[in-house]
Amino acid sequence: MHTAVIIGTGNVATHLFEVFKTNSFLKTIQVVGRTAKGLAPFKNQVTVATDFKTITEADIYFIAVTDKAIAPVSNYLGDRNGIVVHTSGAVSMGVLSASSKGVFYLLQSFSKDQKVVYNRVPICIEASSVSGLDFLKKLGNSISETVYELSSEQRKKLHLAAVFANNFSNHMYAVAAQLCEKNAIPFELLHPLIQETAQKITKLSPKEAQTGPAKRNDILVLQEHLEVLDDKTQQRLYKTISEAIIEFHEEKL
Amino acid sequence: MHTAVIIGTGNVATHLFEVFKTNSFLKTIQVVGRTAKGLAPFKNQVTVATDFKTITEADIYFIAVTDKAIAPVSNYLGDRNGIVVHTSGAVSMGVLSASSKGVFYLLQSFSKDQKVVYNRVPICIEASSVSGLDFLKKLGNSISETVYELSSEQRKKLHLAAVFANNFSNHMYAVAAQLCEKNAIPFELLHPLIQETAQKITKLSPKEAQTGPAKRNDILVLQEHLEVLDDKTQQRLYKTISEAIIEFHEEKL
Repeated sequence: MHTAVIIGTGNVATHLFEVFKTNSFLKTIQVVGRTAKGLAPFKNQVTVATDFKTITEADIYFIAVTDKAIAPVSNYLGDRNGIVVHTSGAVSMGVLSASSKGVFYLLQSFSKDQKVVYNRVPICIEASSVSGLDFLKKLGNSISETVYELSSEQRKKLHLAAVFANNFSNHMYAVAAQLCEKNAIPFELLHPLIQETAQKITKLSPKEAQTGPAKRNDILVLQEHLEVLDDKTQQRLYKTISEAIIEFHEEKL
Repeated sequence: MHTAVIIGTGNVATHLFEVFKTNSFLKTIQVVGRTAKGLAPFKNQVTVATDFKTITEADIYFIAVTDKAIAPVSNYLGDRNGIVVHTSGAVSMGVLSASSKGVFYLLQSFSKDQKVVYNRVPICIEASSVSGLDFLKKLGNSISETVYELSSEQRKKLHLAAVFANNFSNHMYAVAAQLCEKNAIPFELLHPLIQETAQKITKLSPKEAQTGPAKRNDILVLQEHLEVLDDKTQQRLYKTISEAIIEFHEEKL
Protein backbone atom coordinates (compact mmCIF):
# COMPACT_ATOMS: atom_id res chain seq x y z
CA MET A 1 0.00 0.00 0.00
CA HIS A 2 1.34 3.40 -1.00
CA THR A 3 0.79 6.61 0.95
CA ALA A 4 -0.55 9.97 -0.18
CA VAL A 5 -0.86 13.49 1.14
CA ILE A 6 -3.60 15.65 -0.35
CA ILE A 7 -3.01 19.40 -0.27
CA GLY A 8 -6.21 21.34 -0.81
CA THR A 9 -9.80 21.03 0.38
CA GLY A 10 -11.81 21.95 -2.74
CA ASN A 11 -13.74 19.83 -5.22
CA VAL A 12 -10.81 17.90 -6.67
CA ALA A 13 -9.23 17.28 -3.25
CA THR A 14 -12.56 16.05 -1.90
CA HIS A 15 -13.08 13.68 -4.81
CA LEU A 16 -9.51 12.34 -4.60
CA PHE A 17 -10.00 11.70 -0.90
CA GLU A 18 -13.29 9.89 -1.58
CA VAL A 19 -11.85 7.70 -4.30
CA PHE A 20 -8.77 6.73 -2.24
CA LYS A 21 -10.97 5.63 0.68
CA THR A 22 -11.75 2.41 -1.17
CA ASN A 23 -8.56 2.19 -3.23
CA SER A 24 -6.27 -0.80 -2.72
CA PHE A 25 -3.20 0.88 -4.22
CA LEU A 26 -3.10 4.11 -2.24
CA LYS A 27 -4.08 5.38 1.19
CA THR A 28 -4.42 9.06 2.19
CA ILE A 29 -2.42 9.68 5.37
CA GLN A 30 -2.83 13.47 5.61
CA VAL A 31 -4.93 16.32 4.23
CA VAL A 32 -3.39 19.80 4.35
CA GLY A 33 -5.33 23.03 3.91
CA ARG A 34 -5.03 26.71 4.75
CA THR A 35 -8.02 26.87 7.05
CA ALA A 36 -9.58 24.73 9.79
CA LYS A 37 -12.93 25.37 8.13
CA GLY A 38 -11.79 23.79 4.84
CA LEU A 39 -10.39 20.82 6.74
CA ALA A 40 -13.52 20.26 8.85
CA PRO A 41 -15.06 17.57 6.56
CA PHE A 42 -11.79 15.58 6.69
CA LYS A 43 -10.65 15.90 10.30
CA ASN A 44 -12.58 12.92 11.69
CA GLN A 45 -11.34 10.65 8.92
CA VAL A 46 -7.63 11.43 8.58
CA THR A 47 -4.80 13.51 10.05
CA VAL A 48 -5.13 17.13 8.99
CA ALA A 49 -2.82 20.15 9.13
CA THR A 50 -2.97 23.86 8.33
CA ASP A 51 0.80 24.38 8.46
CA PHE A 52 2.42 23.56 5.12
CA LYS A 53 5.74 23.02 6.91
CA THR A 54 4.32 19.95 8.65
CA ILE A 55 3.52 17.92 5.56
CA THR A 56 4.12 14.21 6.32
CA GLU A 57 6.51 12.06 4.25
CA ALA A 58 4.55 10.11 1.60
CA ASP A 59 4.94 8.32 -1.74
CA ILE A 60 2.87 10.92 -3.54
CA TYR A 61 1.77 14.50 -2.85
CA PHE A 62 -1.33 15.80 -4.61
CA ILE A 63 -1.40 19.59 -4.97
CA ALA A 64 -5.12 20.11 -5.57
CA VAL A 65 -5.32 23.87 -5.09
CA THR A 66 -6.24 26.79 -7.39
CA ASP A 67 -3.96 27.18 -10.39
CA LYS A 68 -2.15 30.25 -9.09
CA ALA A 69 -1.29 28.58 -5.76
CA ILE A 70 0.27 25.43 -7.30
CA ALA A 71 3.83 26.82 -7.72
CA PRO A 72 4.06 28.45 -4.26
CA VAL A 73 2.67 25.33 -2.56
CA SER A 74 5.14 23.11 -4.41
CA ASN A 75 8.00 25.12 -2.87
CA TYR A 76 7.24 23.43 0.45
CA LEU A 77 7.96 20.07 -1.19
CA GLY A 78 11.16 20.81 -3.10
CA ASP A 79 13.30 18.31 -1.19
CA ARG A 80 10.93 15.33 -1.00
CA ASN A 81 11.64 11.88 -2.42
CA GLY A 82 8.02 11.11 -3.21
CA ILE A 83 6.48 12.30 -6.47
CA VAL A 84 4.79 15.71 -6.37
CA VAL A 85 1.84 16.08 -8.74
CA HIS A 86 -0.72 18.76 -9.41
CA THR A 87 -4.25 18.09 -10.66
CA SER A 88 -4.84 21.01 -13.01
CA GLY A 89 -5.72 20.87 -16.70
CA ALA A 90 -4.30 24.30 -17.46
CA VAL A 91 -0.95 24.41 -15.63
CA SER A 92 2.37 23.05 -16.95
CA MET A 93 4.18 20.33 -15.03
CA GLY A 94 7.23 22.60 -15.08
CA VAL A 95 5.88 24.97 -12.41
CA LEU A 96 6.47 22.25 -9.79
CA SER A 97 9.78 22.61 -8.01
CA ALA A 98 10.17 18.98 -6.85
CA SER A 99 12.74 16.69 -8.45
CA SER A 100 10.19 13.93 -9.11
CA LYS A 101 7.08 15.60 -10.46
CA GLY A 102 4.00 14.92 -12.48
CA VAL A 103 0.39 15.73 -13.30
CA PHE A 104 -2.69 13.71 -12.42
CA TYR A 105 -5.62 15.39 -14.19
CA LEU A 106 -9.13 14.00 -13.82
CA LEU A 107 -11.12 15.12 -16.83
CA GLN A 108 -14.43 15.73 -15.15
CA SER A 109 -16.42 18.72 -14.06
CA PHE A 110 -16.62 18.14 -10.33
CA SER A 111 -19.22 19.50 -8.01
CA LYS A 112 -18.61 18.80 -4.36
CA ASP A 113 -21.86 17.02 -3.60
CA GLN A 114 -22.14 15.03 -6.77
CA LYS A 115 -21.77 11.28 -7.01
CA VAL A 116 -19.23 10.38 -9.68
CA VAL A 117 -18.68 7.03 -11.36
CA TYR A 118 -14.91 7.26 -11.12
CA ASN A 119 -14.06 4.34 -13.36
CA ARG A 120 -15.56 6.32 -16.26
CA VAL A 121 -13.53 9.48 -15.59
CA PRO A 122 -10.55 9.75 -17.96
CA ILE A 123 -7.30 10.46 -16.15
CA CYS A 124 -4.53 12.30 -18.01
CA ILE A 125 -1.06 11.79 -16.62
CA GLU A 126 2.40 13.24 -17.16
CA ALA A 127 5.64 12.67 -15.23
CA SER A 128 9.24 13.84 -15.22
CA SER A 129 10.64 10.30 -14.94
CA VAL A 130 9.87 6.85 -16.31
CA SER A 131 9.37 5.44 -12.81
CA GLY A 132 7.07 8.34 -11.93
CA LEU A 133 5.03 7.75 -15.05
CA ASP A 134 4.78 4.07 -14.25
CA PHE A 135 3.58 4.87 -10.73
CA LEU A 136 0.91 7.30 -12.00
CA LYS A 137 -0.20 4.77 -14.62
CA LYS A 138 -0.73 2.10 -11.96
CA LEU A 139 -2.51 4.55 -9.70
CA GLY A 140 -4.68 5.78 -12.60
CA ASN A 141 -5.61 2.24 -13.57
CA SER A 142 -6.64 1.48 -10.00
CA ILE A 143 -9.31 4.21 -10.39
CA SER A 144 -10.37 4.50 -14.01
CA GLU A 145 -10.71 2.48 -17.20
CA THR A 146 -9.12 5.33 -19.16
CA VAL A 147 -5.61 6.54 -18.32
CA TYR A 148 -3.91 8.58 -20.99
CA GLU A 149 -0.47 10.15 -21.17
CA LEU A 150 -0.47 13.75 -22.37
CA SER A 151 2.22 16.42 -22.51
CA SER A 152 1.61 19.75 -20.72
CA GLU A 153 1.03 21.31 -24.15
CA GLN A 154 -1.60 18.71 -25.08
CA ARG A 155 -3.28 18.91 -21.70
CA LYS A 156 -3.69 22.67 -22.10
CA LYS A 157 -5.39 22.10 -25.45
CA LEU A 158 -7.59 19.39 -23.98
CA HIS A 159 -8.56 21.72 -21.16
CA LEU A 160 -9.53 24.34 -23.71
CA ALA A 161 -11.49 21.75 -25.70
CA ALA A 162 -13.29 20.84 -22.47
CA VAL A 163 -14.33 24.47 -22.04
CA PHE A 164 -16.16 24.21 -25.37
CA ALA A 165 -17.53 20.71 -24.74
CA ASN A 166 -18.67 21.38 -21.19
CA ASN A 167 -18.85 25.05 -20.14
CA PHE A 168 -20.00 26.43 -23.49
CA SER A 169 -22.50 23.67 -24.28
CA ASN A 170 -23.92 24.18 -20.78
CA HIS A 171 -24.41 27.87 -21.54
CA MET A 172 -26.32 26.88 -24.68
CA TYR A 173 -28.66 24.94 -22.38
CA ALA A 174 -28.89 28.03 -20.15
CA VAL A 175 -30.00 30.23 -23.05
CA ALA A 176 -32.53 27.59 -24.10
CA ALA A 177 -33.86 27.46 -20.53
CA GLN A 178 -34.13 31.23 -20.46
CA LEU A 179 -36.10 31.29 -23.72
CA CYS A 180 -38.43 28.61 -22.34
CA GLU A 181 -38.96 30.44 -19.08
CA LYS A 182 -39.76 33.74 -20.81
CA ASN A 183 -42.43 32.00 -22.85
CA ALA A 184 -44.01 29.77 -20.20
CA ILE A 185 -42.66 26.60 -21.80
CA PRO A 186 -41.34 23.85 -19.47
CA PHE A 187 -37.58 23.44 -20.08
CA GLU A 188 -38.08 19.73 -19.37
CA LEU A 189 -39.44 19.39 -22.92
CA LEU A 190 -35.85 19.87 -24.11
CA HIS A 191 -34.23 17.30 -21.80
CA PRO A 192 -34.57 14.31 -24.17
CA LEU A 193 -33.19 16.35 -27.09
CA ILE A 194 -30.19 17.43 -25.00
CA GLN A 195 -29.49 13.84 -23.94
CA GLU A 196 -29.80 12.61 -27.50
CA THR A 197 -27.45 15.29 -28.84
CA ALA A 198 -24.83 14.29 -26.27
CA GLN A 199 -25.29 10.58 -27.04
CA LYS A 200 -25.15 10.99 -30.80
CA ILE A 201 -21.51 12.08 -30.85
CA THR A 202 -20.42 8.75 -29.40
CA LYS A 203 -21.59 7.17 -32.68
CA LEU A 204 -21.10 9.95 -35.22
CA SER A 205 -18.49 12.71 -35.29
CA PRO A 206 -19.98 16.05 -34.15
CA LYS A 207 -19.49 17.29 -37.70
CA GLU A 208 -21.60 14.46 -39.10
CA ALA A 209 -24.17 14.85 -36.33
CA GLN A 210 -24.80 18.55 -37.03
CA THR A 211 -28.34 19.53 -38.02
CA GLY A 212 -30.32 22.77 -38.05
CA PRO A 213 -30.81 25.95 -40.09
CA ALA A 214 -27.14 27.08 -39.94
CA LYS A 215 -25.93 23.67 -41.17
CA ARG A 216 -28.39 23.95 -44.09
CA ASN A 217 -27.44 27.63 -44.53
CA ASP A 218 -31.17 28.39 -44.44
CA ILE A 219 -30.97 32.20 -44.58
CA LEU A 220 -34.73 32.70 -44.17
CA VAL A 221 -34.96 30.75 -40.90
CA LEU A 222 -31.73 32.32 -39.58
CA GLN A 223 -33.12 35.78 -40.30
CA GLU A 224 -36.45 34.98 -38.67
CA HIS A 225 -34.77 33.55 -35.57
CA LEU A 226 -32.68 36.70 -35.19
CA GLU A 227 -35.86 38.77 -35.35
CA VAL A 228 -37.62 36.61 -32.77
CA LEU A 229 -34.77 37.06 -30.26
CA ASP A 230 -35.27 40.26 -28.29
CA ASP A 231 -32.10 40.00 -26.20
CA LYS A 232 -28.96 41.62 -27.66
CA THR A 233 -26.59 39.05 -26.13
CA GLN A 234 -28.69 36.13 -27.37
CA GLN A 235 -28.74 37.72 -30.84
CA ARG A 236 -24.95 38.05 -30.82
CA LEU A 237 -24.57 34.40 -29.73
CA TYR A 238 -27.01 33.23 -32.39
CA LYS A 239 -25.22 35.17 -35.13
CA THR A 240 -21.66 34.26 -34.14
CA ILE A 241 -22.36 30.55 -33.67
CA SER A 242 -24.48 30.27 -36.82
CA GLU A 243 -21.72 31.92 -38.88
CA ALA A 244 -19.18 29.52 -37.38
CA ILE A 245 -21.39 26.53 -38.29
CA ILE A 246 -21.89 27.80 -41.85
CA GLU A 247 -18.14 28.28 -42.27
CA PHE A 248 -17.36 24.88 -40.70
CA HIS A 249 -19.68 23.06 -43.10
CA GLU A 250 -18.90 25.04 -46.25
CA GLU A 251 -17.87 22.87 -49.16
CA LYS A 252 -14.26 23.54 -49.95
CA LEU A 253 -14.06 24.82 -53.52
CA MET B 1 -58.80 2.44 -35.66
CA HIS B 2 -58.28 5.84 -37.26
CA THR B 3 -56.73 6.43 -40.67
CA ALA B 4 -53.85 8.68 -41.68
CA VAL B 5 -52.26 9.96 -44.86
CA ILE B 6 -48.64 11.05 -44.63
CA ILE B 7 -47.51 13.67 -47.14
CA GLY B 8 -43.72 13.81 -47.40
CA THR B 9 -40.92 11.25 -47.53
CA GLY B 10 -38.21 12.89 -45.41
CA ASN B 11 -37.00 12.22 -41.85
CA VAL B 12 -40.18 13.20 -40.03
CA ALA B 13 -42.44 11.38 -42.51
CA THR B 14 -40.29 8.26 -42.22
CA HIS B 15 -40.38 8.33 -38.42
CA LEU B 16 -44.15 8.93 -38.32
CA PHE B 17 -44.66 6.00 -40.67
CA GLU B 18 -42.46 3.80 -38.46
CA VAL B 19 -44.23 4.73 -35.27
CA PHE B 20 -47.71 4.20 -36.73
CA LYS B 21 -46.79 0.70 -37.91
CA THR B 22 -47.20 -0.56 -34.35
CA ASN B 23 -49.74 2.01 -33.19
CA SER B 24 -53.18 0.81 -32.08
CA PHE B 25 -54.87 4.21 -32.48
CA LEU B 26 -53.87 5.07 -36.03
CA LYS B 27 -53.04 3.32 -39.28
CA THR B 28 -51.30 4.90 -42.28
CA ILE B 29 -53.33 4.20 -45.41
CA GLN B 30 -51.33 6.27 -47.92
CA VAL B 31 -47.98 8.02 -48.30
CA VAL B 32 -47.80 10.86 -50.82
CA GLY B 33 -44.57 12.32 -52.20
CA ARG B 34 -43.37 14.30 -55.19
CA THR B 35 -41.09 11.61 -56.56
CA ALA B 36 -41.14 7.84 -57.06
CA LYS B 37 -37.63 7.79 -55.64
CA GLY B 38 -38.73 9.32 -52.36
CA LEU B 39 -41.64 6.88 -52.15
CA ALA B 40 -39.51 3.80 -52.87
CA PRO B 41 -38.95 2.81 -49.20
CA PHE B 42 -42.73 2.94 -48.58
CA LYS B 43 -44.21 1.39 -51.72
CA ASN B 44 -44.10 -2.24 -50.60
CA GLN B 45 -45.69 -1.40 -47.26
CA VAL B 46 -48.55 0.97 -48.10
CA THR B 47 -50.38 2.65 -50.99
CA VAL B 48 -48.28 5.48 -52.40
CA ALA B 49 -48.99 8.36 -54.80
CA THR B 50 -47.08 11.17 -56.50
CA ASP B 51 -50.17 13.10 -57.55
CA PHE B 52 -51.37 15.38 -54.73
CA LYS B 53 -54.84 15.42 -56.33
CA THR B 54 -55.25 11.73 -55.50
CA ILE B 55 -54.91 12.00 -51.71
CA THR B 56 -57.22 9.43 -50.06
CA GLU B 57 -59.91 10.42 -47.52
CA ALA B 58 -58.58 9.94 -43.98
CA ASP B 59 -59.16 11.06 -40.38
CA ILE B 60 -55.86 12.92 -40.30
CA TYR B 61 -53.41 14.29 -42.89
CA PHE B 62 -49.80 14.82 -41.86
CA ILE B 63 -48.00 17.44 -43.94
CA ALA B 64 -44.39 16.48 -43.19
CA VAL B 65 -42.62 18.50 -45.89
CA THR B 66 -40.10 21.38 -45.83
CA ASP B 67 -41.42 24.53 -44.15
CA LYS B 68 -41.88 26.48 -47.38
CA ALA B 69 -43.96 23.71 -48.99
CA ILE B 70 -46.46 23.37 -46.12
CA ALA B 71 -48.88 26.11 -47.24
CA PRO B 72 -48.98 25.11 -50.93
CA VAL B 73 -49.45 21.42 -50.05
CA SER B 74 -52.28 22.27 -47.65
CA ASN B 75 -54.17 23.88 -50.55
CA TYR B 76 -54.82 20.37 -51.90
CA LEU B 77 -56.66 19.57 -48.65
CA GLY B 78 -58.80 22.68 -48.19
CA ASP B 79 -62.13 20.84 -48.45
CA ARG B 80 -61.41 17.75 -46.32
CA ASN B 81 -63.32 16.74 -43.20
CA GLY B 82 -60.33 15.11 -41.50
CA ILE B 83 -57.88 17.23 -39.53
CA VAL B 84 -54.90 18.60 -41.47
CA VAL B 85 -51.72 18.99 -39.41
CA HIS B 86 -48.18 19.98 -40.15
CA THR B 87 -45.16 18.75 -38.19
CA SER B 88 -42.91 21.82 -38.15
CA GLY B 89 -41.56 23.63 -35.11
CA ALA B 90 -41.15 26.93 -36.91
CA VAL B 91 -44.36 27.37 -38.93
CA SER B 92 -47.65 28.82 -37.61
CA MET B 93 -50.77 26.69 -37.67
CA GLY B 94 -52.45 29.55 -39.55
CA VAL B 95 -50.70 28.78 -42.85
CA LEU B 96 -52.87 25.68 -43.25
CA SER B 97 -55.94 26.28 -45.38
CA ALA B 98 -58.08 23.40 -44.05
CA SER B 99 -61.10 24.08 -41.82
CA SER B 100 -59.96 21.60 -39.16
CA LYS B 101 -56.24 22.11 -38.65
CA GLY B 102 -53.50 21.55 -36.19
CA VAL B 103 -49.82 20.95 -35.48
CA PHE B 104 -48.15 17.74 -34.38
CA TYR B 105 -44.52 18.60 -33.59
CA LEU B 106 -42.13 15.90 -32.42
CA LEU B 107 -39.35 17.60 -30.50
CA GLN B 108 -36.44 15.46 -31.60
CA SER B 109 -33.55 15.80 -33.99
CA PHE B 110 -34.31 13.02 -36.42
CA SER B 111 -31.82 11.26 -38.62
CA LYS B 112 -33.32 8.81 -41.08
CA ASP B 113 -31.37 5.74 -40.00
CA GLN B 114 -31.47 6.31 -36.29
CA LYS B 115 -33.42 4.24 -33.79
CA VAL B 116 -35.58 6.49 -31.63
CA VAL B 117 -37.27 5.64 -28.34
CA TYR B 118 -40.52 7.33 -29.30
CA ASN B 119 -42.17 7.24 -25.90
CA ARG B 120 -39.47 9.66 -24.67
CA VAL B 121 -39.96 12.15 -27.51
CA PRO B 122 -42.04 15.14 -26.36
CA ILE B 123 -44.91 15.92 -28.73
CA CYS B 124 -46.20 19.49 -28.94
CA ILE B 125 -49.72 19.86 -30.24
CA GLU B 126 -52.01 22.67 -31.31
CA ALA B 127 -55.45 22.55 -32.96
CA SER B 128 -58.09 24.92 -34.29
CA SER B 129 -60.94 23.09 -32.53
CA VAL B 130 -61.56 21.40 -29.20
CA SER B 131 -62.35 18.09 -30.89
CA GLY B 132 -59.20 18.36 -33.00
CA LEU B 133 -57.11 19.03 -29.90
CA ASP B 134 -58.69 16.06 -28.16
CA PHE B 135 -57.88 13.85 -31.15
CA LEU B 136 -54.23 15.00 -31.27
CA LYS B 137 -53.93 14.53 -27.50
CA LYS B 138 -55.12 10.91 -27.76
CA LEU B 139 -52.84 10.28 -30.72
CA GLY B 140 -49.90 11.89 -28.92
CA ASN B 141 -50.49 9.82 -25.81
CA SER B 142 -50.54 6.64 -27.89
CA ILE B 143 -46.93 7.43 -28.87
CA SER B 144 -45.23 9.41 -26.11
CA GLU B 145 -45.27 9.95 -22.36
CA THR B 146 -45.07 13.72 -22.91
CA VAL B 147 -47.74 15.53 -24.90
CA TYR B 148 -47.89 19.26 -24.43
CA GLU B 149 -50.17 21.91 -25.85
CA LEU B 150 -48.34 24.97 -27.20
CA SER B 151 -49.50 27.96 -29.24
CA SER B 152 -47.79 28.70 -32.57
CA GLU B 153 -45.98 31.57 -30.86
CA GLN B 154 -44.68 29.33 -28.07
CA ARG B 155 -43.70 26.57 -30.48
CA LYS B 156 -41.60 29.05 -32.47
CA LYS B 157 -39.77 30.03 -29.28
CA LEU B 158 -39.30 26.39 -28.33
CA HIS B 159 -37.90 25.68 -31.79
CA LEU B 160 -35.43 28.50 -31.33
CA ALA B 161 -34.52 27.21 -27.84
CA ALA B 162 -33.92 23.80 -29.42
CA VAL B 163 -31.44 25.38 -31.86
CA PHE B 164 -29.38 26.49 -28.85
CA ALA B 165 -29.85 23.24 -26.90
CA ASN B 166 -29.17 20.92 -29.83
CA ASN B 167 -27.54 22.53 -32.89
CA PHE B 168 -25.34 25.00 -31.01
CA SER B 169 -24.25 22.62 -28.25
CA ASN B 170 -23.36 20.13 -30.99
CA HIS B 171 -21.15 22.74 -32.64
CA MET B 172 -19.37 23.22 -29.30
CA TYR B 173 -18.59 19.48 -29.44
CA ALA B 174 -17.39 19.96 -33.02
CA VAL B 175 -14.92 22.69 -32.02
CA ALA B 176 -13.71 20.53 -29.12
CA ALA B 177 -13.22 17.61 -31.52
CA GLN B 178 -11.29 19.86 -33.91
CA LEU B 179 -8.99 21.06 -31.11
CA CYS B 180 -8.36 17.44 -30.09
CA GLU B 181 -7.66 16.32 -33.62
CA LYS B 182 -5.19 19.16 -34.24
CA ASN B 183 -3.25 18.15 -31.12
CA ALA B 184 -3.30 14.35 -31.46
CA ILE B 185 -5.65 13.93 -28.50
CA PRO B 186 -8.43 11.32 -28.77
CA PHE B 187 -11.81 13.11 -28.71
CA GLU B 188 -13.16 10.07 -26.84
CA LEU B 189 -11.51 11.47 -23.69
CA LEU B 190 -14.24 14.13 -23.72
CA HIS B 191 -17.21 11.76 -24.15
CA PRO B 192 -17.85 11.19 -20.41
CA LEU B 193 -17.65 14.94 -19.70
CA ILE B 194 -20.15 15.64 -22.49
CA GLN B 195 -22.56 13.01 -21.16
CA GLU B 196 -22.22 14.32 -17.63
CA THR B 197 -22.86 17.91 -18.70
CA ALA B 198 -26.05 16.83 -20.48
CA GLN B 199 -27.18 14.75 -17.49
CA LYS B 200 -26.47 17.43 -14.92
CA ILE B 201 -29.17 19.79 -16.18
CA THR B 202 -31.86 17.24 -15.39
CA LYS B 203 -30.98 17.76 -11.69
CA LEU B 204 -29.73 21.36 -11.57
CA SER B 205 -30.78 24.32 -13.70
CA PRO B 206 -28.17 25.07 -16.40
CA LYS B 207 -27.43 28.32 -14.58
CA GLU B 208 -26.61 26.43 -11.36
CA ALA B 209 -24.65 23.80 -13.29
CA GLN B 210 -22.34 26.32 -14.97
CA THR B 211 -18.62 25.98 -14.22
CA GLY B 212 -15.43 27.19 -15.90
CA PRO B 213 -13.23 30.29 -16.25
CA ALA B 214 -15.98 32.54 -17.70
CA LYS B 215 -18.35 31.69 -14.85
CA ARG B 216 -15.56 32.59 -12.39
CA ASN B 217 -14.69 35.66 -14.51
CA ASP B 218 -11.08 34.43 -14.42
CA ILE B 219 -9.53 37.03 -16.73
CA LEU B 220 -6.07 35.40 -16.71
CA VAL B 221 -7.29 32.01 -17.94
CA LEU B 222 -9.66 33.62 -20.46
CA GLN B 223 -6.77 35.67 -21.86
CA GLU B 224 -4.49 32.65 -22.02
CA HIS B 225 -7.13 30.54 -23.77
CA LEU B 226 -7.61 33.24 -26.40
CA GLU B 227 -3.87 33.25 -27.03
CA VAL B 228 -3.74 29.45 -27.33
CA LEU B 229 -6.48 29.44 -30.01
CA ASP B 230 -4.93 30.02 -33.42
CA ASP B 231 -8.17 29.96 -35.40
CA LYS B 232 -9.96 33.32 -35.85
CA THR B 233 -13.46 31.77 -35.80
CA GLN B 234 -12.71 29.76 -32.66
CA GLN B 235 -11.37 32.92 -31.02
CA ARG B 236 -14.55 34.80 -31.90
CA LEU B 237 -16.69 31.97 -30.50
CA TYR B 238 -14.62 31.81 -27.33
CA LYS B 239 -14.87 35.55 -26.77
CA THR B 240 -18.56 35.95 -27.57
CA ILE B 241 -19.69 32.97 -25.47
CA SER B 242 -17.41 33.83 -22.53
CA GLU B 243 -18.75 37.40 -22.48
CA ALA B 244 -22.31 36.06 -22.54
CA ILE B 245 -21.55 33.74 -19.60
CA ILE B 246 -19.94 36.55 -17.61
CA GLU B 247 -22.94 38.80 -18.24
CA PHE B 248 -25.41 35.99 -17.43
CA HIS B 249 -23.77 35.31 -14.07
CA GLU B 250 -23.05 38.89 -13.07
CA GLU B 251 -24.45 39.79 -9.68
CA LYS B 252 -27.19 42.34 -10.14
CA LEU B 253 -26.18 45.49 -8.27
